Amino acid sequence: MSKKINVGIIGATGYTGSELVRILIHHPSVEIAVITADSRKGERFVDVHPQFRGIFDAPLVGIEEIDKHDLDVVFLALPHGVSMGFVKDYLDRDFKIIDLSGDFRLSSPSVYKTWYKKDHNFSEGFESAVFGLPELFRARIKKAHLVANPGCFPTSAILALAPLLKEGVVDKNHLIVDSKTGVTGAGNKAKTNTHFPVVNDNFTAYGIKTHRHTIEIQEVINSYSGEESSVLFTPHLLPVDRGILSTCYLKPTKEMTEQKLSMLFKNYYGNEPFVRLVDQVPSIKQVRGTNFADLFTTYDERTQTIITVSVIDNLVKGAAGQAVQNMNLMMGLSEDEGLTIVPIQP
Amino acid sequence: MSKKINVGIIGATGYTGSELVRILIHHPSVEIAVITADSRKGERFVDVHPQFRGIFDAPLVGIEEIDKHDLDVVFLALPHGVSMGFVKDYLDRDFKIIDLSGDFRLSSPSVYKTWYKKDHNFSEGFESAVFGLPELFRARIKKAHLVANPGCFPTSAILALAPLLKEGVVDKNHLIVDSKTGVTGAGNKAKTNTHFPVVNDNFTAYGIKTHRHTIEIQEVINSYSGEESSVLFTPHLLPVDRGILSTCYLKPTKEMTEQKLSMLFKNYYGNEPFVRLVDQVPSIKQVRGTNFADLFTTYDERTQTIITVSVIDNLVKGAAGQAVQNMNLMMGLSEDEGLTIVPIQP
Amino acid sequence: MSKKINVGIIGATGYTGSELVRILIHHPSVEIAVITADSRKGERFVDVHPQFRGIFDAPLVGIEEIDKHDLDVVFLALPHGVSMGFVKDYLDRDFKIIDLSGDFRLSSPSVYKTWYKKDHNFSEGFESAVFGLPELFRARIKKAHLVANPGCFPTSAILALAPLLKEGVVDKNHLIVDSKTGVTGAGNKAKTNTHFPVVNDNFTAYGIKTHRHTIEIQEVINSYSGEESSVLFTPHLLPVDRGILSTCYLKPTKEMTEQKLSMLFKNYYGNEPFVRLVDQVPSIKQVRGTNFADLFTTYDERTQTIITVSVIDNLVKGAAGQAVQNMNLMMGLSEDEGLTIVPIQP
Amino acid sequence: MSKKINVGIIGATGYTGSELVRILIHHPSVEIAVITADSRKGERFVDVHPQFRGIFDAPLVGIEEIDKHDLDVVFLALPHGVSMGFVKDYLDRDFKIIDLSGDFRLSSPSVYKTWYKKDHNFSEGFESAVFGLPELFRARIKKAHLVANPGCFPTSAILALAPLLKEGVVDKNHLIVDSKTGVTGAGNKAKTNTHFPVVNDNFTAYGIKTHRHTIEIQEVINSYSGEESSVLFTPHLLPVDRGILSTCYLKPTKEMTEQKLSMLFKNYYGNEPFVRLVDQVPSIKQVRGTNFADLFTTYDERTQTIITVSVIDNLVKGAAGQAVQNMNLMMGLSEDEGLTIVPIQP
Repeated sequence: MSKKINVGIIGATGYTGSELVRILIHHPSVEIAVITADSRKGERFVDVHPQFRGIFDAPLVGIEEIDKHDLDVVFLALPHGVSMGFVKDYLDRDFKIIDLSGDFRLSSPSVYKTWYKKDHNFSEGFESAVFGLPELFRARIKKAHLVANPGCFPTSAILALAPLLKEGVVDKNHLIVDSKTGVTGAGNKAKTNTHFPVVNDNFTAYGIKTHRHTIEIQEVINSYSGEESSVLFTPHLLPVDRGILSTCYLKPTKEMTEQKLSMLFKNYYGNEPFVRLVDQVPSIKQVRGTNFADLFTTYDERTQTIITVSVIDNLVKGAAGQAVQNMNLMMGLSEDEGLTIVPIQP
Repeated sequence: MSKKINVGIIGATGYTGSELVRILIHHPSVEIAVITADSRKGERFVDVHPQFRGIFDAPLVGIEEIDKHDLDVVFLALPHGVSMGFVKDYLDRDFKIIDLSGDFRLSSPSVYKTWYKKDHNFSEGFESAVFGLPELFRARIKKAHLVANPGCFPTSAILALAPLLKEGVVDKNHLIVDSKTGVTGAGNKAKTNTHFPVVNDNFTAYGIKTHRHTIEIQEVINSYSGEESSVLFTPHLLPVDRGILSTCYLKPTKEMTEQKLSMLFKNYYGNEPFVRLVDQVPSIKQVRGTNFADLFTTYDERTQTIITVSVIDNLVKGAAGQAVQNMNLMMGLSEDEGLTIVPIQP
Repeated sequence: MSKKINVGIIGATGYTGSELVRILIHHPSVEIAVITADSRKGERFVDVHPQFRGIFDAPLVGIEEIDKHDLDVVFLALPHGVSMGFVKDYLDRDFKIIDLSGDFRLSSPSVYKTWYKKDHNFSEGFESAVFGLPELFRARIKKAHLVANPGCFPTSAILALAPLLKEGVVDKNHLIVDSKTGVTGAGNKAKTNTHFPVVNDNFTAYGIKTHRHTIEIQEVINSYSGEESSVLFTPHLLPVDRGILSTCYLKPTKEMTEQKLSMLFKNYYGNEPFVRLVDQVPSIKQVRGTNFADLFTTYDERTQTIITVSVIDNLVKGAAGQAVQNMNLMMGLSEDEGLTIVPIQP
Repeated sequence: MSKKINVGIIGATGYTGSELVRILIHHPSVEIAVITADSRKGERFVDVHPQFRGIFDAPLVGIEEIDKHDLDVVFLALPHGVSMGFVKDYLDRDFKIIDLSGDFRLSSPSVYKTWYKKDHNFSEGFESAVFGLPELFRARIKKAHLVANPGCFPTSAILALAPLLKEGVVDKNHLIVDSKTGVTGAGNKAKTNTHFPVVNDNFTAYGIKTHRHTIEIQEVINSYSGEESSVLFTPHLLPVDRGILSTCYLKPTKEMTEQKLSMLFKNYYGNEPFVRLVDQVPSIKQVRGTNFADLFTTYDERTQTIITVSVIDNLVKGAAGQAVQNMNLMMGLSEDEGLTIVPIQP
């Protein structure tokens, strides 16, 4: 048996950190060498995530411990704005970096500033960063040293939009993405808008016209298709823990039929390990806990509109799972290694 | 004090029946004279709805009892397809009829058959029926003998779409309604798709391209505006009890600004007792239990799209509350009498 | 028509404040004269509670405004430890005081210190304070100048325990109260343990052996029955907004039968306006939004145990509703005035 | 590598069936040879459980197919009353049987009839059946040909009660079990009491004094301890999918301390692979999807009561997971093989 891949996780206290551990401790080729959490340094991982008691008992260490390990891959599970500093410090190291924040997903520091409302302090990083959506950029990811792991909403939307744009069969200025997400998308810090009685038995929209994932979706499909499109994205908050469902509405520019649409997507995703083209409208629970993206597409002749419905687990295919998928590609492993998780339903 | 209005409710076992009672027992001008429920005849209302114990203790009687009372108004709280027979039997009586089913909301028996997949057995009823959305058809409702109470989704969508269509400022062939509803919209009969573990912590779309409320929305806004529009409507099922949130996307055909949009809606709804034009994106809980429709509108310059977000309680403004609002109009009462309910939040 | 009762509410931002308003604006004999909220002074009530838009539009003022009004009753909707200072300042005023905090519910400052872990700064208040559970202390409440409104858990438990203790038919040292509460019981401040993903689809116990309501239950049933009992109380956190269900287990010391048990409770509560003795196990939703306490009792011959199941809405009969019930008694009104609310179910 | 264990699953449509598959397809030593489902014969497993698409694609066959396979173990995932007929037919076959129904958990056909209200048609089966709770009956399970897999509530309660009874330190006639369960415990058939709006944001007790698991708990702890105890068991229905939390109240008959209590349980469960003795009150989510039983114990000196709080996933340690644990023991595998699942939280 070959040597295990040594992995470091920077940032252990959030949902992304605990999901990375949940996946990686069953990954046959991986050894979690070190986990840092400056705010809980000295405690143990199970103190923060008691569900791991008896399963994974690592200490939480300070960032300085990273240098004491011979690491192959480092995952940055940190907030936007914080991650960039670590990328700056580590980009010339031997280990590969997978950044789960939004800091290197966009095209430039100026676009970043416009949508994230803060200055970027490491513009050089943008050149190295590869957008880590394997279904679109597999070849580049395999060679990447720094992967910017996609946002959760963008993952669900881009998988639906990109093939249609690339084939040039839809109106570039009529791309409506109506998304609904579970609350873990907002992180594990308690806030007024995630207080249980505020969310429970309730539903609302938020971030209308201004959500940062708008530009991420738009830039990526443009880069992939070579077109200049304009994306409208509206997120809504579901009273559920996990899961994103995105409903997209597009206008065909060429004659469209149900069959053409179906063939088009089969050509793109027919052999993908994690995209399931489904003929029934999917629900978020049928991918819960897994790296699957389930995608339903249909054409409404009456209104001449293409409708797509895609679902992912925002913490897995929308974050930690996709990060591991990227790691597998970067390290030359089988793409689905450690990711053959069965959905937990109900 | 003037004589009370004598009300009969046909169909007491469903959510609509219990909501009518919840509202009417506090209505100053109304006396509930009789409640029928053939399937539970001989039992008492509290046997079916135990929450009313000590509050409202009426017997459930057979339909034949209707004739023994001198009624002013009869509410039909019956399933689609069942209601039409009662309208047929009762249309020449002295009492006014408010039908909460979908049997007389559409324009003709043939349209009904296309979307409801069953024959209509009382085509004459269509001529008498007035669509009971007071904000659009108040004058006609006041004189109506038969009101077809609107569907829940249509109420939330039409209020947003109608003014824009009427003013001719949006593309008639680009009307996208993405709606999300609570489970009570499916009625109180247990079915596989409303089984708790199926719905809880889950979310899905349904009825894509085929939901009956599509044609109801389209026909009503066309009738109101005199235009031939084409509506795309996609419902989704929320893991909540009550409430509908509809997000609509429209393309302006004339120069649009945030201010113009705001003025347009203020002109239509500024004096409405139950439409609240809100400047924060609304949530369904802020109207729970009440007859309010909260409506938020905005214009996205970047994508040149009008976005509206409207919320109602599907059982109140989407059913029983609007029925009482219609009754108030038909009987010459103050439109909000008995409907000044405060939302229960949280 | 007689002059309205002028009411002041001190503390408008919490759930108790908004529930007081929800109830009082429909109370026929009450005028809300002033609402204070030092932390949101200068804003309006609807800014904090947007569901009231178009219904109740009062300014939020500072505490100094209290003196500018000729008030009959003041409700203190403040945190424990804060309320006592206001009682100290206002106890010699003409208006009556209903304190919804826990500051004057116990027997003495020393007991308070033991269970609340803080010093009490107004021990004189304990002499004036009457425990505001009308079903047990109606006569005293009518004459009270200061009412200590009961805690939510105690309300649900004491109603079940007190008659059995008073009649001397159960073992005083075997009083087990297993309670389950909705999240609003924890207030409207976002905390880690009320973060949506922590509570949703989850369930846990908390405060085992140490919850403050233990001593409140024990002292009140002792004071009422003249016995020295010992209460074991265990609260649990439900993933619901509102409602408490308490299951009590007691051992009879005399021969017990289902019929004797039933008669005993009928004697105590048969004429109570807000206690419903039910013959089916109640659910929390059947009292939601109302001042009802539904109580089910049964005797298990096999294990010789009395089991009671009681449900209330923690924000209404467990807080604001009971406060209004107390106000009605203190002001000589009909006890149920303004409180004939129908449960909202589902 | 040794030959795989050939497994048959009889009854594929319920939650137990899908959980068995979820666990077994990752079990290194197991091959699922055949799955039957008479009601869905001819369809595929993914038609009933679409979450398995792309993961496990077996046909659903009729019961007659069982005979065509050389099976080592058969799991009966069938309703109570149905299972006994299959045990009767199969008990003399070579394969081992794990029955997940309640048909062979009790001591005799007459006890079965008293609590299940139906006749038992295979009384001979009771002699062969071993109660499949490994923590108590490991040695017997290893040699068993027929295992009666424990009920979900009993698993959570017996683990807490049995050591205390066995050691003779608690009053045998004072065993109070207050349990709260998720809705999957009621199966996947839609019923009125599991309709989403009935359960959501609600909570109630049920089956008071009569629930079948009462006698299962009582008989098992009696058999294990050699005592004649009397158990009071009250189940409640939580608005969650999965999980049981049982709070038990017991009276010590000997001097008790926190330390003695802790030592007692450590002696019993200190080396158990699936019992985690926790020092913080557990929540159901921290075992979700796994075979863990988390157990918290404490002694309340004030009321001289032992309190235990135990949590399990009712579908895993309370059903399919424990069945696999039993299979591992019966087949001489490592007890935790295929069961090292990490909880999915949130």
